[in-house]
Amino acid sequence: VTRVLVVGAGLLGTSIGLGLKAKGHTVQLTDKSSSAAALAADYGAGEVLSSEFSPEVIFICVPPEETAQSIIEFLEKFPKATVSDVASVKASIEKAVATRVNSARFIPGHPMAGRERGGAIAGRSDLFVARPWILCPGDHNEVGRLAAVESLIAELGASVVKMSASDHDRAVALVSHVPQAVSSLLAARLAEAEAEDIALAGAGLRDTTRIAASSPELWLQIYAANSLEVNQELKAFRADLDRLIVALDAIGQPGSLAAVNQILDAGNRGVAKIPGKHGSKAQQYQRIVVMIDDRPGELGRLFNEVGALGVNIEELQLEHSPSAQIGLVELFVLPKFAEPLVAGLQNRGWRIAG
Amino acid sequence: VTRVLVVGAGLLGTSIGLGLKAKGHTVQLTDKSSSAAALAADYGAGEVLSSEFSPEVIFICVPPEETAQSIIEFLEKFPKATVSDVASVKASIEKAVATRVNSARFIPGHPMAGRERGGAIAGRSDLFVARPWILCPGDHNEVGRLAAVESLIAELGASVVKMSASDHDRAVALVSHVPQAVSSLLAARLAEAEAEDIALAGAGLRDTTRIAASSPELWLQIYAANSLEVNQELKAFRADLDRLIVALDAIGQPGSLAAVNQILDAGNRGVAKIPGKHGSKAQQYQRIVVMIDDRPGELGRLFNEVGALGVNIEELQLEHSPSAQIGLVELFVLPKFAEPLVAGLQNRGWRIAG
Repeated sequence: VTRVLVVGAGLLGTSIGLGLKAKGHTVQLTDKSSSAAALAADYGAGEVLSSEFSPEVIFICVPPEETAQSIIEFLEKFPKATVSDVASVKASIEKAVATRVNSARFIPGHPMAGRERGGAIAGRSDLFVARPWILCPGDHNEVGRLAAVESLIAELGASVVKMSASDHDRAVALVSHVPQAVSSLLAARLAEAEAEDIALAGAGLRDTTRIAASSPELWLQIYAANSLEVNQELKAFRADLDRLIVALDAIGQPGSLAAVNQILDAGNRGVAKIPGKHGSKAQQYQRIVVMIDDRPGELGRLFNEVGALGVNIEELQLEHSPSAQIGLVELFVLPKFAEPLVAGLQNRGWRIAG
Repeated sequence: VTRVLVVGAGLLGTSIGLGLKAKGHTVQLTDKSSSAAALAADYGAGEVLSSEFSPEVIFICVPPEETAQSIIEFLEKFPKATVSDVASVKASIEKAVATRVNSARFIPGHPMAGRERGGAIAGRSDLFVARPWILCPGDHNEVGRLAAVESLIAELGASVVKMSASDHDRAVALVSHVPQAVSSLLAARLAEAEAEDIALAGAGLRDTTRIAASSPELWLQIYAANSLEVNQELKAFRADLDRLIVALDAIGQPGSLAAVNQILDAGNRGVAKIPGKHGSKAQQYQRIVVMIDDRPGELGRLFNEVGALGVNIEELQLEHSPSAQIGLVELFVLPKFAEPLVAGLQNRGWRIAG
């Protein structure tokens, strides 16, 4: 049992509290808004901080622009505690802390998890499950400090990834800050559009603009703190956009379609590199499509036989149309298993499609 | 009962066939690839076209650049049939048809439904449910032609929206073609990125780039046919992007944060204008998340027990993080099954998350 203090009762703080309390740790919470702390406590994320509490590990979960100040404050207030944070920018915070206090007890952190909704009531104990959680430890850190934080993160179900603060800021500009900005820019085009036009929107527009619903306050702080890395990526994006616009202006002229195709193709290749996407598994995994009758028990029968063949399924997806006569199960397996699996399933009477 | 011919056994043609067959109509299919037509027929989308078939309504579901030619061919081949199409661009096709044949029997159409995956096996009878289906009828159309198409579309669960071909092309540039292009541009930034950086990706990147997995062949045709409208929107997007880049370059100077905030705020307002998910899985089905150990046989064990509980799985998805010890299986079931399934699985020792 570790005594944990969560500072900041928003989405991340509340989720950490919920997750660690569920694992039997002692969690207390504080927030500059006492009603926010009380709400998170009511929600089950821990007790409101009492004056005699002496935390071993402190998670600073306040907005990015308050994070450095809060880290310093709690390092000083609890001179034995290990302090970590969850802010989406790391280099500027690390520097701000190290220039003002001894940061031997501070392990910079950033869980790659979130939702477009914020606040305690959006908190969930499984928010971090199977998500990367970046830590940026340094040589100045005292021995044992890192292990204490890592162990709690593992209990939240996340996977620790270690990198330098500057590598972090560059990587998140690419995978998080720029997609967020582009989503906002895309959604901004709708702000003055006709409702009848927007009513035609499909899943594509919804998915590409979903995160544009996120809090401007939070993102303003992130962009301010990581503007260099974000702008470098945004300018590379703009260069591609310029190429597309030039090509579309020249449609019908030689080379224009090839230029458009180059971008679409790079998009295909880029999306295929994202882990956890079924399309991406084409490189790593072999895809096998099995037709099943659309009734209870068929999936169990199928996966039993797959298990009996000694094959682990890496990814799967069920295609299931209410009035189709069959369902399609897409299995992604390591390439070496593909051929024996297809043969084994066909021997047992399963229909393989595609 | 209407005799319907579907020309083109890809995603849309197969889905139309599945949906109309389920409603009791007589559906025949044809495709320039006879194996594609045979696959769609196996899948339950209709019979392969026979020489004596005399269709009343024909849906042309071939790639955009072949659509005008195919419309003309089938108008001539079946001189009594009403012909509609599903191409994502309308003005250029309407013009190409009208300049070459009498188009009194042709009703231009475009269902606002699709998936990033194509082909017959991605087809689903419910693809069009609660989706807009644009029709661009004209004064030249014979009385009764429109009603025949509208009635079939209603049976597929879609809502007919009538507009001119040019209004269509402008609106879909905004809500479909430009989001698609921006998603491709965003995903293209990942094509040369480090795998370790991309491994940090969360749901935001996945959602914003999902449609970038779509077929370049299809989208190349769409962009070529609607380049003017697409480029007008892309240039407006670029103007906003330029403003953001200038503001980020000036971070710290007066007015820079306000300029960034203006874009984030417009993004908030834009996304708020998108109508909610209609007929989405989230509404039809209840979502249950089960944690499983990442080893062979676990899925079989899970689905056996789900089958033993008498529950049919409507949709499922496996979340599978390379470094996590556990996987998350998302099951979507009819609401009435959700509570007994959770209880039953928990009784058998399964861990339910969220």
